[in-house]
Amino acid sequence: MSWNDLVAHLSEIEILDGVGATLGWDEQTYMPKKAAGLRGSQMALLSRLSHERRTDARIGRWLEALDDKDPVQRACARNLGRVYRREQRVPAALVDKLARARSEGFAAWIDAKAASDWQRFLPSLRTLRDLTLERVRAIDPKRHPYEVLLEEYDPGTTVESLRAMFARLRDGLVPLIDAIAKQKQLAAIDAVVPLEAQWKLSSAVAAALGFDFEGGRLDRAEHPFSTGQGEGDVRITAHLKPSDLLGGLGGTIHETGHALYEQGLPFSLAGTTVKEAASYGLHESQSRFWENYVGRSRPFAIFLARTAKDVLGSECPAALADPDAIFRAQNRVERSLIRTQADEVTYNLHVIVRFEIELAIFEGSLALEDVPAAWNEKYQSYLGVTPPDTARGALQDVHWSSGAFGYFPSYTLGNLYAASFGKTMETAIPSLWSDAEKGDFSRPLAWLREHVHARGHLLETPELVRDAVGERDHVEDLLGYLWTRVGSLYGVSR
Amino acid sequence: MSWNDLVAHLSEIEILDGVGATLGWDEQTYMPKKAAGLRGSQMALLSRLSHERRTDARIGRWLEALDDKDPVQRACARNLGRVYRREQRVPAALVDKLARARSEGFAAWIDAKAASDWQRFLPSLRTLRDLTLERVRAIDPKRHPYEVLLEEYDPGTTVESLRAMFARLRDGLVPLIDAIAKQKQLAAIDAVVPLEAQWKLSSAVAAALGFDFEGGRLDRAEHPFSTGQGEGDVRITAHLKPSDLLGGLGGTIHETGHALYEQGLPFSLAGTTVKEAASYGLHESQSRFWENYVGRSRPFAIFLARTAKDVLGSECPAALADPDAIFRAQNRVERSLIRTQADEVTYNLHVIVRFEIELAIFEGSLALEDVPAAWNEKYQSYLGVTPPDTARGALQDVHWSSGAFGYFPSYTLGNLYAASFGKTMETAIPSLWSDAEKGDFSRPLAWLREHVHARGHLLETPELVRDAVGERDHVEDLLGYLWTRVGSLYGVSR
Repeated sequence: MSWNDLVAHLSEIEILDGVGATLGWDEQTYMPKKAAGLRGSQMALLSRLSHERRTDARIGRWLEALDDKDPVQRACARNLGRVYRREQRVPAALVDKLARARSEGFAAWIDAKAASDWQRFLPSLRTLRDLTLERVRAIDPKRHPYEVLLEEYDPGTTVESLRAMFARLRDGLVPLIDAIAKQKQLAAIDAVVPLEAQWKLSSAVAAALGFDFEGGRLDRAEHPFSTGQGEGDVRITAHLKPSDLLGGLGGTIHETGHALYEQGLPFSLAGTTVKEAASYGLHESQSRFWENYVGRSRPFAIFLARTAKDVLGSECPAALADPDAIFRAQNRVERSLIRTQADEVTYNLHVIVRFEIELAIFEGSLALEDVPAAWNEKYQSYLGVTPPDTARGALQDVHWSSGAFGYFPSYTLGNLYAASFGKTMETAIPSLWSDAEKGDFSRPLAWLREHVHARGHLLETPELVRDAVGERDHVEDLLGYLWTRVGSLYGVSR
Repeated sequence: MSWNDLVAHLSEIEILDGVGATLGWDEQTYMPKKAAGLRGSQMALLSRLSHERRTDARIGRWLEALDDKDPVQRACARNLGRVYRREQRVPAALVDKLARARSEGFAAWIDAKAASDWQRFLPSLRTLRDLTLERVRAIDPKRHPYEVLLEEYDPGTTVESLRAMFARLRDGLVPLIDAIAKQKQLAAIDAVVPLEAQWKLSSAVAAALGFDFEGGRLDRAEHPFSTGQGEGDVRITAHLKPSDLLGGLGGTIHETGHALYEQGLPFSLAGTTVKEAASYGLHESQSRFWENYVGRSRPFAIFLARTAKDVLGSECPAALADPDAIFRAQNRVERSLIRTQADEVTYNLHVIVRFEIELAIFEGSLALEDVPAAWNEKYQSYLGVTPPDTARGALQDVHWSSGAFGYFPSYTLGNLYAASFGKTMETAIPSLWSDAEKGDFSRPLAWLREHVHARGHLLETPELVRDAVGERDHVEDLLGYLWTRVGSLYGVSR
């Protein structure tokens, strides 16, 4: 009986959160400007209703009554237990202080970034760091503080495994990027394509990858995002620019990857915590798999050139009708300062800089005032570039201003898992690339549905990935793939 | 203190209902097809949360503590008291039975209408009528049962006032329609105009009337509707057809009228029940004022012809560039069978037929099996047409299938009030029609803002209207206006 009550209770939370997600989508797409205040009140009420239910005292009793022999109930005990204990152990006063510090931190960051002045951000960052440490100690004083943070985004992943993987990845990427930098740069495609035509192309590609338009939508928004609101309602957005067709399309493919995961979740397990994605890193692996592993491949370039000719007709620029030109443009590598604009190869070094700095902060070996210097030194050492100012250095990302320490690793975890999924599929699906050339992506999608999507949060991510690909070295899979695909294009080898 | 608590409580209900309205809008505009089940769960949860708050036992105590000397609290006592007492007096078991009867009734009506067979609808209708009577007696056994029903839509309006007004209106309309029927028919405009261009025209007209696009939207939907979700968020939809520009535009103007009311409500009185529209009839008066009184006038036709030329350019058909052709087409009168397709003059007779039948049912003087015969007889007598089948007769409207008895009068009440608003403005605003020719509608909007919109539900509708227009004879205002405008076009006079 109590299991049914718990499922009903958790289902209600999921429905409330889905309503909030729908309003969040509306806010980014169609909401009238003057509705901002009203929407704020609506979101606040919904999150209060959800929070009340998440902290309902009955959850403790329901948790104790779960049947450990049932795999779904066992997973629920783990997933819900973790969240509930975290909520229980953090004093309400600290939650309030953190909420205030976050909103002050965001304002201070906006201000500091505009002035490119770390000092202006420092007091807020210090408060956020101190309160975060207090929270971490309340949750589990015995564990590595960074692992407690990490757990919010990537439960099941340890600091030690990250430290080892990221160090090897860094040491493998630096020589690849050095070698590429000595070669002739690949040509970009900067043709101007009308937005109406790009829109059709984006929709056609999302549909080809398997996005179900009867259970989802693709709309315009200022920033591309994907939002799963429940069964049959997964929406993605795109931000297209006339002179950056490949960039806009890449964004759509990325969000399509997230959306395919959301469309493939085990909806029959609603209200059990198992219907959810297993982690941020695993979610990111789905977007990266399609955006990079598939989307930057030569077979995909062949498919894309043909589709561009079909969809754009006379508006199709010559370069977009040429698979080789697309393939080269999709794999350009450039040392740069800004993470969000980085290419596939350098991207992970941007993340690793942040991971190393966050780790040092929470291990107490890096003072906050020294972050910009450490940042610049690492950028020079790993990427060969030094930010000319802090705005383009340690102040560039929003994450720390909202206290989201421990979030960055999920981006690179996604790339690591995606590489192993790709490697595994290349064996499991012999026609993978010949299908892709034809625009048939049904087999890799079916593989992901079976091994990732449909499993929801039954297992923690490292275990789920092991079940899917076996004992693989994700770092070697990613490095091997990058050296092979991108290295070859630049004429360099290991 | 308890007043503040009550306001906070009612504000929360308003916010929840606004969230529901946003989801309702999404359902009709952008929601993916497969999200229907999810949306059902979301709406059910929201309406449960709202219902729990509406029936909160504290409301009874809060009501008792209201300060009768404060006009807002006095209005709140009246508005909230009415709704709360209705909820309190109806047993939960009856509420459940009614809910079931409504959903069964809807299914039976769909079926009966498709088969044009009243007998198939009869058992469900009988159940709905019986349960409705039971509900009415529980609410107030001493009052006229139809007035108890009416009160849900048009509180403050009595059965006796309706009976008198509608009889006089009927007796005044029948000779007008008879006279018109003997004249040469006015020409319609059936030019085909591409939807993209119609869309621009609809937006331009809504903006000219004063619809605030920064606090609202206009979208495509299967049916035109208007929905106010709170301050800064009022959305309207249109359903346009290539060969019916004037029909589609009329729908947009109608919904714009509703939306202008919603955009002009006294938002500072949120949580007091006074921020709401005063009645369905008054709401309808706003849509009808703009759609008919303004939208079918000759000055508006001059404005529209000019705007059509501007917006449609070379796509503008000759008839739409001719104010006289527009004016005639907008005022065609035709005896017809279907209420929703009726013109402005005959429309009220369609409503009066339904009112007389509903009244007879609830006064016990008409058996349900005799409704189709009574219907056909009245159609022949008032409109000179007899439905060839029940689908185009007594089965045409959805209302009764959901137990919405007492709703129909609000349509004609809206026309009556609109006529008196128009008459009053013609005196109060000397430049009313010369402004309209120029596309300036700011003065009538300002008048409605002051006398209707900003007053919210401080007064009951009859009193609010009296305050706005003085002691006027609405029936005479409506008949006079129709004889003058439409009668003249057909060359007939009283």
